[in-house]
Amino acid sequence: MATPAPDTHDALHRLRQAMPEVTVLSADDELQAHRWDRALDPNAGVPLAVVLPRSTEDVQQIVRYAGAHGIPLVPRGAGSGLSGGASAVDGCLVISMAEMTDYEIDPVTRMATVQPGIINADLKQATAAEGLWYPPDPASVGFSSIGGNVATNAGGLCCVKYGVTTDYVLGLTVVLADGTVVNLGGPRLKEAAGLSLTKLFVGSEGTLGIITQVVLRLIPPPPPACTVVATFADLDASCQAVLEVASTVRASMLEFMDAAAVNAVEDVHGYGLDRTAAAMLIAQSDQPGEAGTREVEVIAEVFRKFGATEVLVTSDQATGDTYTAARRAAIPAVEAKGRLLLGDVGVPLPELGSLVTGIAEISARHEVVISVIAHAGDGNTHPLVVFDPDDAAQAARAEVAYGEVMDLAIGLGGTITGEHGVGRTKKAWLPDYVGEDVVALNRTIKDALDPRGLLNPGAIL
Amino acid sequence: MATPAPDTHDALHRLRQAMPEVTVLSADDELQAHRWDRALDPNAGVPLAVVLPRSTEDVQQIVRYAGAHGIPLVPRGAGSGLSGGASAVDGCLVISMAEMTDYEIDPVTRMATVQPGIINADLKQATAAEGLWYPPDPASVGFSSIGGNVATNAGGLCCVKYGVTTDYVLGLTVVLADGTVVNLGGPRLKEAAGLSLTKLFVGSEGTLGIITQVVLRLIPPPPPACTVVATFADLDASCQAVLEVASTVRASMLEFMDAAAVNAVEDVHGYGLDRTAAAMLIAQSDQPGEAGTREVEVIAEVFRKFGATEVLVTSDQATGDTYTAARRAAIPAVEAKGRLLLGDVGVPLPELGSLVTGIAEISARHEVVISVIAHAGDGNTHPLVVFDPDDAAQAARAEVAYGEVMDLAIGLGGTITGEHGVGRTKKAWLPDYVGEDVVALNRTIKDALDPRGLLNPGAIL
Repeated sequence: MATPAPDTHDALHRLRQAMPEVTVLSADDELQAHRWDRALDPNAGVPLAVVLPRSTEDVQQIVRYAGAHGIPLVPRGAGSGLSGGASAVDGCLVISMAEMTDYEIDPVTRMATVQPGIINADLKQATAAEGLWYPPDPASVGFSSIGGNVATNAGGLCCVKYGVTTDYVLGLTVVLADGTVVNLGGPRLKEAAGLSLTKLFVGSEGTLGIITQVVLRLIPPPPPACTVVATFADLDASCQAVLEVASTVRASMLEFMDAAAVNAVEDVHGYGLDRTAAAMLIAQSDQPGEAGTREVEVIAEVFRKFGATEVLVTSDQATGDTYTAARRAAIPAVEAKGRLLLGDVGVPLPELGSLVTGIAEISARHEVVISVIAHAGDGNTHPLVVFDPDDAAQAARAEVAYGEVMDLAIGLGGTITGEHGVGRTKKAWLPDYVGEDVVALNRTIKDALDPRGLLNPGAIL
Repeated sequence: MATPAPDTHDALHRLRQAMPEVTVLSADDELQAHRWDRALDPNAGVPLAVVLPRSTEDVQQIVRYAGAHGIPLVPRGAGSGLSGGASAVDGCLVISMAEMTDYEIDPVTRMATVQPGIINADLKQATAAEGLWYPPDPASVGFSSIGGNVATNAGGLCCVKYGVTTDYVLGLTVVLADGTVVNLGGPRLKEAAGLSLTKLFVGSEGTLGIITQVVLRLIPPPPPACTVVATFADLDASCQAVLEVASTVRASMLEFMDAAAVNAVEDVHGYGLDRTAAAMLIAQSDQPGEAGTREVEVIAEVFRKFGATEVLVTSDQATGDTYTAARRAAIPAVEAKGRLLLGDVGVPLPELGSLVTGIAEISARHEVVISVIAHAGDGNTHPLVVFDPDDAAQAARAEVAYGEVMDLAIGLGGTITGEHGVGRTKKAWLPDYVGEDVVALNRTIKDALDPRGLLNPGAIL
């Protein structure tokens, strides 16, 4: 552990004196552990300290202190972000929500009131114990926090039918840049009083205020799902099948894995998936009873029509869960192959085939593996660019390929991020995607709410 | 028709010269017809003119002209708003969207791209012709516009299961205060690129920009619904039944009418409803097949448990439609009794009984009829205060009662508006409800986006 410079030593001393009840971490290994999120942004800075509030009042105290001393603030959920939204900046305070994990579930009104640090899966489990369901299920469900999910408007596998995080956020408590605490929305199902501020803070990536409490809507769990799995020899045909399924029924899951993803999962887990397929689709229907059985049969028929080489239909939960687990295992399995540049581009569904085949072309041209997994029914894909960080030339090619995938998506009328956020690693593409006028509108709101630019500086804009 | 004053004459001449292709109405009867929405705000001003754009470019031209001449702008959908959000202000241009009714439906991607003036029911019909469904169904479905629905984040009967307008808005084209046209979101199911601007403009009541195009998500229509209708002798018992239904199943409709509403509907339509009941509940389940039949039986059982005097369960569509029609007829039927002050207050569901009985107490104390109809499953009620506009004393009591209902809702942890917006008639209560800090946050955003205050001045803030 290095000894901090005298200036830093003084700053830390003042900080600890100002908030004796807040845990302040400043050891070198602790700072290093809080510099990066999962995007491993090479430009991440070194924080002055990591602070661990336990309450809204603690966060308010931190924000006021930072304001008084001009210290930038980087809020951090579980550090599972994929766009560098929680990368530290030099001299900042990282506000880790790791100790803000309290929750209350009200089964009568079907709402949960939670602190932002709670892990999504922990909330799901607590909710299930009350016979209820919190739908949003990013692939990171086991290790991402609700605060981070709200800050990025996270999606997941069930979103094709059940929507994304914002659809479940009824209320937020937010500490604004000047330390004011506001309660936006609340435990009411409908709200039309004033501007839609709750919704504005969802997806704001910590740039407008620090979220300290979230009121979430819960729903009853769906009936057990029936599952269809199919393999395809042709990438484009699998995407055509996705489009026809999505315009025919209302699947509760419609996921895609390419050959590289299937093989990476097989290398780690050995589920017995078909390593020779160009693409695998996993779809589910959670309609009750007969309706579900009929719906998966319709999906299976569409898969066959588009030349599926193998189609499995099952109402057995364990079998369905295995395929879902295989899909969820894909990012970690591909991650085991090297360093990743994790994309998250979405296109209008008719362009899914052009996107996927275009990514394959970019992969071949730059001689880097790009594994594609997708929430296919949403047109939302995760191209994972794999590279060896010790091979500088390959790393450079990977960087170029990552950018070209975003350019491709923009060219197809798509978005540079559907559910991860812009963070720091994607902001260079934001103007190309939304246009300078919309960037300016983002900037206008950011400047109005955080005129000194102390909240998560460098994220989004 | 009065002759306009010379100044006005010159202003109109310049306006027509500046935009020869935009219809400009300035006859006195035309101005009078565009001063009020359905709230009949007594403080409505007289516009300089009514302009009828046909395109985003037309709106841009109007906004630029207004900006150059410092003329306030009041956007207007169908004028069906219930909070005075479309009340004219003196000397303004009313931008009527009556001629912007184009739409395109893409059944493959299940999206509709519409101009804001299209009537909700017309869109529903066009959508149904493609085998799809646009869920939001405010009681005004037959005569309110999509633009107005978006501007107020309108709700409706199906929202208890299917959510409100914002849940279906994927993209907006907006003309900002300086005439810049921005495309926010678009035909993509997931979006996380930059701040959630699309969601911010939903519910902004024309105060941040003028919406000129909307991209809406569509879903397949639900299966035919089964219906349960029950009458109760006791108001509070009916609300307890609502709470238990809402925490037991997931009804696709859960509506409430009090005795005054039932009797008003009977006076006009004679459906044969029970005029002696204190309350009537209408619930539906649209689960497919057996599941739907089971769900309505569960609901019926709850109704009986809470002392329903009569319970009707039916899977007959025509019968179910009759009760839904009776519910939809309630506001116009009560409107036939006198002038209305139309409230729209929502509470956390456990407080619904206290709200409804408290409203009855306010009604008795001020000797004015307050008829309550409610999207009960959402805790969202419409207290309709009825008064004779020619009886000044009664009108004054009605005004006081209307305010007390909002105070009551606030005291119960509720909102002053769940689906109508604040407009001009409710803004005096906004600070009491959200607090001065949240009002200030609304103001900060308003000032940042419309620094000269020309967009719908006096609405919300």
